[in-house]
Amino acid sequence: MAMSSYETCVSQLDDGLNITVQNSLLIQCLAKSIDENTGTTSDLRDGLDTFFIIYSASLVFFMQAGFAMLCAGSVRLKNVQNTMLKNLLDACGAALGFYTVGYAFAYGGQSYDGKTTFIGNANFFLIGEDDFVFWLFQFAFAATSATIVAGTLAERCQMTAYLCYSVALTGFVYPVICHSVWSYNGFLSATAKDPLFGSGMIDFAGSGVVHLTGGTTALIATKILGSRKGRFFDERGNKLRHPKPFPGHSVALQVLGSFILWFGWYGFNTGSARSIVTAAQSKIAALAATNTTLAAASGGVASLFTNLIIMERLTGEAVFNLNFAMNGCLGGLVSITSGCAVIEPWAAIITGFVAGLLYLAFSRLLVKRCIDDAVDAIPVHMINGLWGLISTGLLASPHLLEAAYGNSKHAGWFYSWGRGSGDFTLMCCQLIGILFILSWVTFLMLPFFLFLNYMGWFRSDALEEIVGLDISYHGGSHHNMNEVKPEYLEAYRKQRDEQLKNRGHNGSTTFEDAEEDGVHVSVDNVVANF
Amino acid sequence: MAMSSYETCVSQLDDGLNITVQNSLLIQCLAKSIDENTGTTSDLRDGLDTFFIIYSASLVFFMQAGFAMLCAGSVRLKNVQNTMLKNLLDACGAALGFYTVGYAFAYGGQSYDGKTTFIGNANFFLIGEDDFVFWLFQFAFAATSATIVAGTLAERCQMTAYLCYSVALTGFVYPVICHSVWSYNGFLSATAKDPLFGSGMIDFAGSGVVHLTGGTTALIATKILGSRKGRFFDERGNKLRHPKPFPGHSVALQVLGSFILWFGWYGFNTGSARSIVTAAQSKIAALAATNTTLAAASGGVASLFTNLIIMERLTGEAVFNLNFAMNGCLGGLVSITSGCAVIEPWAAIITGFVAGLLYLAFSRLLVKRCIDDAVDAIPVHMINGLWGLISTGLLASPHLLEAAYGNSKHAGWFYSWGRGSGDFTLMCCQLIGILFILSWVTFLMLPFFLFLNYMGWFRSDALEEIVGLDISYHGGSHHNMNEVKPEYLEAYRKQRDEQLKNRGHNGSTTFEDAEEDGVHVSVDNVVANF
Amino acid sequence: MAMSSYETCVSQLDDGLNITVQNSLLIQCLAKSIDENTGTTSDLRDGLDTFFIIYSASLVFFMQAGFAMLCAGSVRLKNVQNTMLKNLLDACGAALGFYTVGYAFAYGGQSYDGKTTFIGNANFFLIGEDDFVFWLFQFAFAATSATIVAGTLAERCQMTAYLCYSVALTGFVYPVICHSVWSYNGFLSATAKDPLFGSGMIDFAGSGVVHLTGGTTALIATKILGSRKGRFFDERGNKLRHPKPFPGHSVALQVLGSFILWFGWYGFNTGSARSIVTAAQSKIAALAATNTTLAAASGGVASLFTNLIIMERLTGEAVFNLNFAMNGCLGGLVSITSGCAVIEPWAAIITGFVAGLLYLAFSRLLVKRCIDDAVDAIPVHMINGLWGLISTGLLASPHLLEAAYGNSKHAGWFYSWGRGSGDFTLMCCQLIGILFILSWVTFLMLPFFLFLNYMGWFRSDALEEIVGLDISYHGGSHHNMNEVKPEYLEAYRKQRDEQLKNRGHNGSTTFEDAEEDGVHVSVDNVVANF
Repeated sequence: MAMSSYETCVSQLDDGLNITVQNSLLIQCLAKSIDENTGTTSDLRDGLDTFFIIYSASLVFFMQAGFAMLCAGSVRLKNVQNTMLKNLLDACGAALGFYTVGYAFAYGGQSYDGKTTFIGNANFFLIGEDDFVFWLFQFAFAATSATIVAGTLAERCQMTAYLCYSVALTGFVYPVICHSVWSYNGFLSATAKDPLFGSGMIDFAGSGVVHLTGGTTALIATKILGSRKGRFFDERGNKLRHPKPFPGHSVALQVLGSFILWFGWYGFNTGSARSIVTAAQSKIAALAATNTTLAAASGGVASLFTNLIIMERLTGEAVFNLNFAMNGCLGGLVSITSGCAVIEPWAAIITGFVAGLLYLAFSRLLVKRCIDDAVDAIPVHMINGLWGLISTGLLASPHLLEAAYGNSKHAGWFYSWGRGSGDFTLMCCQLIGILFILSWVTFLMLPFFLFLNYMGWFRSDALEEIVGLDISYHGGSHHNMNEVKPEYLEAYRKQRDEQLKNRGHNGSTTFEDAEEDGVHVSVDNVVANF
Repeated sequence: MAMSSYETCVSQLDDGLNITVQNSLLIQCLAKSIDENTGTTSDLRDGLDTFFIIYSASLVFFMQAGFAMLCAGSVRLKNVQNTMLKNLLDACGAALGFYTVGYAFAYGGQSYDGKTTFIGNANFFLIGEDDFVFWLFQFAFAATSATIVAGTLAERCQMTAYLCYSVALTGFVYPVICHSVWSYNGFLSATAKDPLFGSGMIDFAGSGVVHLTGGTTALIATKILGSRKGRFFDERGNKLRHPKPFPGHSVALQVLGSFILWFGWYGFNTGSARSIVTAAQSKIAALAATNTTLAAASGGVASLFTNLIIMERLTGEAVFNLNFAMNGCLGGLVSITSGCAVIEPWAAIITGFVAGLLYLAFSRLLVKRCIDDAVDAIPVHMINGLWGLISTGLLASPHLLEAAYGNSKHAGWFYSWGRGSGDFTLMCCQLIGILFILSWVTFLMLPFFLFLNYMGWFRSDALEEIVGLDISYHGGSHHNMNEVKPEYLEAYRKQRDEQLKNRGHNGSTTFEDAEEDGVHVSVDNVVANF
Repeated sequence: MAMSSYETCVSQLDDGLNITVQNSLLIQCLAKSIDENTGTTSDLRDGLDTFFIIYSASLVFFMQAGFAMLCAGSVRLKNVQNTMLKNLLDACGAALGFYTVGYAFAYGGQSYDGKTTFIGNANFFLIGEDDFVFWLFQFAFAATSATIVAGTLAERCQMTAYLCYSVALTGFVYPVICHSVWSYNGFLSATAKDPLFGSGMIDFAGSGVVHLTGGTTALIATKILGSRKGRFFDERGNKLRHPKPFPGHSVALQVLGSFILWFGWYGFNTGSARSIVTAAQSKIAALAATNTTLAAASGGVASLFTNLIIMERLTGEAVFNLNFAMNGCLGGLVSITSGCAVIEPWAAIITGFVAGLLYLAFSRLLVKRCIDDAVDAIPVHMINGLWGLISTGLLASPHLLEAAYGNSKHAGWFYSWGRGSGDFTLMCCQLIGILFILSWVTFLMLPFFLFLNYMGWFRSDALEEIVGLDISYHGGSHHNMNEVKPEYLEAYRKQRDEQLKNRGHNGSTTFEDAEEDGVHVSVDNVVANF
């Protein structure tokens, strides 16, 4: 048994001192033990928070796998490889982009006492930054925002275009929004020293910063890119009476993706508390996790059963639509991301429920308007990102705002009315935030995509699209291609050889084995030829 | 460098005081630093435990993905969508059910000093409850208990029936068991102030509460629901000489599911320590994780090699049966769930080994008795849930009971014999617990399923079952349906149109595109029609 | 509100004492509060570290699922079941092997003050060891090292051989290396009291211990086992002009596997800090996580685009090769595993970039040399494990070495030159470590595999390989076998019946249903026959 601190201190006293002197020395000695405890505790706080953020960042990173599986399941077999590569490159690109400039633009040189800036301008290449877990967490968010777009554009977008916008988004467009809403020096930030209208915009974990940004980009991009061949129009460009369904190739992977995303959201939302060393922060993190669960659940239920009831009325048949249930859950998750720390559980259920209905309505609207979204990312991320911000403006509770932001002057509109004031300040900040994000994204991405399109870098070649992007970009497909008609394959092969000859190459060697092998061209024989 | 607490206190002293007065003031001043440390530490304890439970709950939630993949892999392609929806709805339903009433029945108003109750009756809608992480963790457990049943009934159960029993289970049946075994006020609880026979039932993480409950429900349900068409009987109802195998459509997904479950179990079992801020609790959590690993491993090995040896004797051929290895692991995990904190690693290996053998024997028995379990959930969860409780009664070690429950008066029977007493108290509590769970589940679920069956709400229509539930409930299948004979599809389509006409609808529009498209009916053309 | 510690102590004083005596008593009383705080804090340190390691170990364990999915996706459908079983048995075997002897050989009886030993020799069956989380973490590493080999040998290795080498590797070969590099008493250990040349070998999370060991074993094994039939040679043994590609059956599962591995690596590398309770350790863990991310990203990008540029030059066509991107990421992860805690982020990017190039070059070299590696595990794990150790010898920064190992006398060669000394000590230790691992593995595994091969226990029967291992070892396949020609199936069936008859069994019963069912033989009819 170790000696008590008192015994230790007594044992260090010289003999024959009088009691008063002894007391003085003991006090001095014990003070050291106190300081040691303070030091240990401070280290523990560091350790706990570091671990908390590593955990959260890992889970947010794992959402990349979720998006990948959701996309993989949602596309046709002939495009799986292409889609998977885009998902993988998102993660890689975001890491490098956020390391070099993205983080610097978003948080570089932030200081609580500094003045409001539009963009950060320090810590490029992480120079001078040693808060590595914060970088890690933020990188994972940036990667998420880029991945959202990938799904929408699946099956018809060129790799080059994809690489360009992915870098632009994570390197510049997203960081500026991130800076404005989350940095101490952002003009919308609720954690700024002197926030907008004394309130600032509340976007706890990024309904706006991440999802609205990604979703809006997706909408702009798909409008310019156009729909997949045969989805809404026939070969002569006449509108089909019924849009042709392009069912994904694996429901199981879609559901796996959804569950991984839901799982990852526990890192996304709770980790946004950024620290868990005070009792208040613990409560915030716990509330965020609970609200996340409830909103997801009510979103899925709302979407599934509303559709079921409508369909039953119209066709006499009860149809349980898995896609709607799944995307309803995701919509609920997106919508709660903004307010998870500042609204009550009952409000989370309402938020999720409305999210499910909004998803359903806008998914339908997109189809009506012939806007092609291969994974319904627009109604899930854009619409519900937007709704999440408004829901927070409505339902943010004063005492939770106090706990999470230390500022409850301007609560949600619902509570303001309850207080009899009708104070619209918070909601106003939310609306300004929404307008800012919509404008900023449109202002940058619209000309960007128009330019890509004008240069012919955006849309895949028509024949490539029909035979599938796996063959055209990846040297072959790993799968039996009975989705694709042989005559299209033949036509594609001819066109390709032609092009290669024009560039002075003889492409035929690469396809030799392919001839023997049907259409089984792959990695290895490509390798064998260089 | 910050000043030490001593220097700070000295700097606050007025000049010219005598040493004794100085000492008094210093003491007073340092006491404040002590209190600050105490406060910081207390906050850290909160934070660490909150984080620990958020982590554990996330992992337990992720088990939903594990069950989903296990089921997806185990069913035939034509039922994947149906199965996936059930898994997703489990998570949603459990969240809403446990928020509204389940949690209130299970833990509402629990108090260590309160008297024994049969059911909780406070905190409905989480009103008055602010321990959100505890709710989150418990919700994830409730969801698990419902999901267990989904697998067994796959490929032949109506959605309506599924929704009904899923709500009943998570909203009422499970919470009462949970209350009895885990609430301070439960009559079987080992953490009660005055536990049953001075011991109470030891079910650390829920072999009984979760798995026996789910597994027993599955057994009752499948007995009433009957086996899948063609599994044990031919079209005229004659028993087949050999049961027809219904192999699942993806081994890879089954294994993925098993690994996710094993991974999730590290949250399930270690999180059940509920707190990790004392050295004793850390040891418990660590032991639980280690035992979990060992039991899973020995369960898988036992099941695989026992089967291999038997088959080799009978047929002369060594067959490595993946399904048995996989389910042996899961059986081992279920069996260790009860005792993971109170038995030694060697005992975990024995527990897992026996679990593997029990799984094998009962899986065989079910087939012999023509009880159809699409994923072998009954031998995995029911039989090994039961065995887990008995194993704890046998092998719970006194010093671990002391560490985990602060009560080692009644140890496992094995140790009692070692002590020369043969004290059967703990085992007796375990047996009472088993009887209680079996009776309670049977008492409620048997009439419930009989009623569903009597009303015709339980079993799918025969033709629907043959063409697959994906077409009948979900407006089509995402897959090539070469599993299904065209004449059955044709018959099903006629029957369906007939029904719709009788209800005054003209269903044909919905199937128009389907005609053009082979049997590719899907989400989008369904959407296009409302 | 609770009383402050000062008030509490004052309230315990008797009346009428003089101030000096009061002070003495107060000091004594407050000292108790200090000790209580110290105790609570010490418990918290225990708790935080235990939790940190449980978390990390869970993630490392989850990598088993990653390897399984990577393998499942990379093999042909006819071998999926076989591959999955091997992955599952790895986890089980490693748990049992590491429990019984592996841990004892690796860390048994380690003591900082003990002398250097070649192998541990205490704590067999975990007797006398109560640091269970450390065991758990180490078990997960051992399992990883065995799993690496599984992929390379896929599609042609007998189950028996697999079981033998898997046990040998995790039970003896790996533990000795682990002991040498990581135990306090290892002759290469950087944490030894008196490390080699005053420096020791730096392998923070196991580029060498885990990946080089696994990868080297894989290389030896595949050299002896030979390539898959038809991969490099035709039926008469003539070398093919172009190696025949054996594309895996699911790109989506491959990518899922890669993402799971990347996710798991956050446990692998950060958890190797082993503790997170001091500020220095927090920084190490955070840096490790960040470097892990950056190396993976730059590895993937390097491999993808270098290949793209080369191919574009050669064939005129830009090919985005998903497999190369994926394995480039994994190569980057392997290479950063050794140095993640001691190199700067910019160095992590360089390390990963070189790893991507090395992967590409060696993947190509293997094909040229007709060395068949079904998942490219050799260039990923062996080559980049080796490169990771060298990269650490080059780029380990003095101040990070100081933080992580408390010893910065011998920094990376790059920094040594900067200091003007050219001190080669660290690099020398790294090279000795590499030589040791290569020699130890070769010395043990080469005769081992030669022996297996000589006895005819290594390679599957030729016909079995052609019809796929799922039928031959697992009593049938779960899948439509249109990969396999019917005449081969027929030939295989005849050969099998012959063998069974020779052993005195009549195998035909087992295949009865199979006849009715095409080649759908499965679990259930196998069960039905014992």
